[in-house]
Amino acid sequence: MSVTTPSAQLTVQKLLQTLPQGLTLLQGSNDAIITEIVPPDKSHATALVFASEKALFDTAKAKGFGALCIPTSLQKHVSDNGKDTILVYKDLPQTFAALFPLFDKPVQNFSDSKFPTFVDPTAKLGKSVAVEPFAVIGRNCIIGNNCRIGSHCIIEEGTIIGDGTILHGHVFIGRNTKMGANCIIHANTTIGSDGFGFARQASGAMSKIPQLGIVVIEDDVEIGANCAIDRATMTETRIGRGTKIDNLCHIAHNCKVGENNVLAAGLFIAGSSQTGNFVTTGGGVMIADHVKITNQVMLAGKSGVTKDIETSGAYGGYPLQPLKESLKNIANIGNLTTMRKQLHRALKALNLEEEEK
Amino acid sequence: MSVTTPSAQLTVQKLLQTLPQGLTLLQGSNDAIITEIVPPDKSHATALVFASEKALFDTAKAKGFGALCIPTSLQKHVSDNGKDTILVYKDLPQTFAALFPLFDKPVQNFSDSKFPTFVDPTAKLGKSVAVEPFAVIGRNCIIGNNCRIGSHCIIEEGTIIGDGTILHGHVFIGRNTKMGANCIIHANTTIGSDGFGFARQASGAMSKIPQLGIVVIEDDVEIGANCAIDRATMTETRIGRGTKIDNLCHIAHNCKVGENNVLAAGLFIAGSSQTGNFVTTGGGVMIADHVKITNQVMLAGKSGVTKDIETSGAYGGYPLQPLKESLKNIANIGNLTTMRKQLHRALKALNLEEEEK
Amino acid sequence: MSVTTPSAQLTVQKLLQTLPQGLTLLQGSNDAIITEIVPPDKSHATALVFASEKALFDTAKAKGFGALCIPTSLQKHVSDNGKDTILVYKDLPQTFAALFPLFDKPVQNFSDSKFPTFVDPTAKLGKSVAVEPFAVIGRNCIIGNNCRIGSHCIIEEGTIIGDGTILHGHVFIGRNTKMGANCIIHANTTIGSDGFGFARQASGAMSKIPQLGIVVIEDDVEIGANCAIDRATMTETRIGRGTKIDNLCHIAHNCKVGENNVLAAGLFIAGSSQTGNFVTTGGGVMIADHVKITNQVMLAGKSGVTKDIETSGAYGGYPLQPLKESLKNIANIGNLTTMRKQLHRALKALNLEEEEK
Repeated sequence: MSVTTPSAQLTVQKLLQTLPQGLTLLQGSNDAIITEIVPPDKSHATALVFASEKALFDTAKAKGFGALCIPTSLQKHVSDNGKDTILVYKDLPQTFAALFPLFDKPVQNFSDSKFPTFVDPTAKLGKSVAVEPFAVIGRNCIIGNNCRIGSHCIIEEGTIIGDGTILHGHVFIGRNTKMGANCIIHANTTIGSDGFGFARQASGAMSKIPQLGIVVIEDDVEIGANCAIDRATMTETRIGRGTKIDNLCHIAHNCKVGENNVLAAGLFIAGSSQTGNFVTTGGGVMIADHVKITNQVMLAGKSGVTKDIETSGAYGGYPLQPLKESLKNIANIGNLTTMRKQLHRALKALNLEEEEK
Repeated sequence: MSVTTPSAQLTVQKLLQTLPQGLTLLQGSNDAIITEIVPPDKSHATALVFASEKALFDTAKAKGFGALCIPTSLQKHVSDNGKDTILVYKDLPQTFAALFPLFDKPVQNFSDSKFPTFVDPTAKLGKSVAVEPFAVIGRNCIIGNNCRIGSHCIIEEGTIIGDGTILHGHVFIGRNTKMGANCIIHANTTIGSDGFGFARQASGAMSKIPQLGIVVIEDDVEIGANCAIDRATMTETRIGRGTKIDNLCHIAHNCKVGENNVLAAGLFIAGSSQTGNFVTTGGGVMIADHVKITNQVMLAGKSGVTKDIETSGAYGGYPLQPLKESLKNIANIGNLTTMRKQLHRALKALNLEEEEK
Repeated sequence: MSVTTPSAQLTVQKLLQTLPQGLTLLQGSNDAIITEIVPPDKSHATALVFASEKALFDTAKAKGFGALCIPTSLQKHVSDNGKDTILVYKDLPQTFAALFPLFDKPVQNFSDSKFPTFVDPTAKLGKSVAVEPFAVIGRNCIIGNNCRIGSHCIIEEGTIIGDGTILHGHVFIGRNTKMGANCIIHANTTIGSDGFGFARQASGAMSKIPQLGIVVIEDDVEIGANCAIDRATMTETRIGRGTKIDNLCHIAHNCKVGENNVLAAGLFIAGSSQTGNFVTTGGGVMIADHVKITNQVMLAGKSGVTKDIETSGAYGGYPLQPLKESLKNIANIGNLTTMRKQLHRALKALNLEEEEK
């Protein structure tokens, strides 16, 4: 039994047409029927299966399949009678990105489309906007065509959202946010909360600095679940076109995240920092405030950035260093006790005191 | 004044009956009346009080109590006239787990049980299911008996939930999730958001890889507030039976968390990683992708796991090491400046350059 | 075009009256009209602009402005014909905190104020309480005057909220919470989820310890988006008066956070820990359980606290040290590989083995 819902019935020919540059038929039938994508150990007679290494290839063979997708490197293992349908892919992620949409049945949460919602009469909704149960759309909002506004979403006054954007359930969009087209925002994410700005009074108490700015999300941005992106103090917090942000990330006020960033879960960017284009981060990266990171920077998981990064490349660690150096230095933390003992013996052999007199 | 709402009026006898193997009456009355559990400094004539050390014992004595629970080690301090009701416990957490339910009045948020909700006509609800205001239950969902679906929860199409499961407010459950019986999910948690999967195009832009899989939560799982658990790419993300997850945790697509894990707040597990059974983590642990952790592993707070852990035991640090080594190495980070100065003096005494020629 | 909505039309005189001790008119007109605050590069003829350094001053001059606010240190650059309106500020954050409210138009999400909500008939609401769409207020709750209860908020039974408190959308407040006056809670935050308490049974399975306590939030507290604050086991989790908490923070059961703390994003405090008054933390700080931190402590970003801090001052690192020491030791992590090589050469020169025999 597969855990995915069968969502399609299509032929191998359809797969080849979908990715003409990236997928070729090595042997077998254009007309083989495919009903779903499964991993090798769940394969069956109408399954499309990917095997990136020999062991998975063997598993799929043993189970049977509708079509088997392999890299060039596994072609030499295809030694059967030619009846099996075998496809060769060039690039696995590209192939997933091209073929998976064929099997991704759109969510259909409700049997019909009449829901209790609260849309302010001044809000303007485009064509074919799905507003799910209990969603709230405030005064003077403008929602583009073909958007999906998930259940319980809150869109505060003056927000503009481009065509084709999807908000999953429980998304909060603060007033005057500008969001582009074809964005995807996952559940329980907050966009446009107040930036964290206060002035310490003589008494020691903090006075709030109202946050007058907004958040701007450009086109094709995806933001994971349970993230928080703060509005700017005066101007805008901006997420650049095509950037993808994972779950539980925090982006503070006045930040400017560049285009086509890929930012893994647990990223914390403090106020007014900037990333260039094509920046990627591993999990749990922390970026201090007022830091500027140039284009094409890769930050390893758990790294901490406290200064500008002016040269493209891979970095890691805290303190941040070029990745290779950082990996060696981090590994050597594991040798510290040994090093200290060695050092003690060296000092003793030299008749030197632990502390300089 | 106690901060807890008096929720019970019961006798010491009832306490003893509830935990016959773990609680004994040292002296006093089976019939003493207990109305609530309070800490020693808030004790009063009908309070049940726990004193694990002498100072707390003295505080409770000074305040008076309905019954005082002590460990064996404090018995020697009981030297009064025998009128005070004193109980002796074997194991404090076990005693809490057994007795606290007697004082835990079920939430009764509303004066009656008629609420505006949105339950799709195709959804099937078991007996005695409490669906709180504005909850949304989608197409073809199946909800077991005696469940509580909190206010504003969203349960997307095709989700199955077992008997006795409690969803607190604002929980999001993505389509086709399979959740077991007697689970508890806290507020603002997201289960079944898309995994973070993309393919980089030649242009540098990222194409989304649709996430076709689901999340499976086995029986008796508790998940804290504001967590995010992603659906799998093809198959399932699974949380094993009896596992408890604290607040603000992230579990990425394709992960398999074992049974009876206890995972403290701020845990981030990247894609496709696995934990065995009886794994425990302190706060802020990060586990990289495609890592496999065996059974009965304890990970100290702030540790970072980047490789498989094949041997049960306690570990910590980043790089990860057996706990004892790790604690020493972490402590020695605090000696680094001193060590560097010592090393400099040793090199100087040896007429060696800082850098090898 | 400015990104902020023009929200005011007022004179320079009004600004001076608002902050008589902190703002003086260096030259120009009391009657100059101001419509909004913008950064120097977006300045225009009716803008109020702040220039803290020479380059921003020049930008504002080139763009024109309604009034320009500068620090004393920039006065020497004011050498024009005296027609420009120039103000001198004493303290920038104080000036922001005083003047920004003049430009902060209250949110008006909806064209009128009739919404579908669910307020239990036993709940008591003060005067001028705004209950936004789909908010839920439970049995026996008491809400003070002039509160704003955002869309989709859930306030569970027995909760008390003081005057003037604002809950943004999707806030969850667990039963019996006591919240003071003039608090601000941002979207998707959870207050009063169960503490993470379990007892391990002989079988290895965990039994839940019901959490009987509550959360108390004192006056003037602000809590960011997507935070989680757990209810206490028996008594209370308390956040002291005037404390400000950033996004994505976790505060576990039984914690007592002092007054006027300023706690940046990603703070995790484990169970039963305490902070004094005037404690500040940088991003990503972790505090272990049962730790007590005294007044006026500053913790640098990414620091880890595992022991009591008994002396006021600045600290950082993990292991935690006084800040200056910690910064040097952290920097030296970046020298570890070099140090190890140096040590190797010293041992070799001394004819010492790597490992002591």
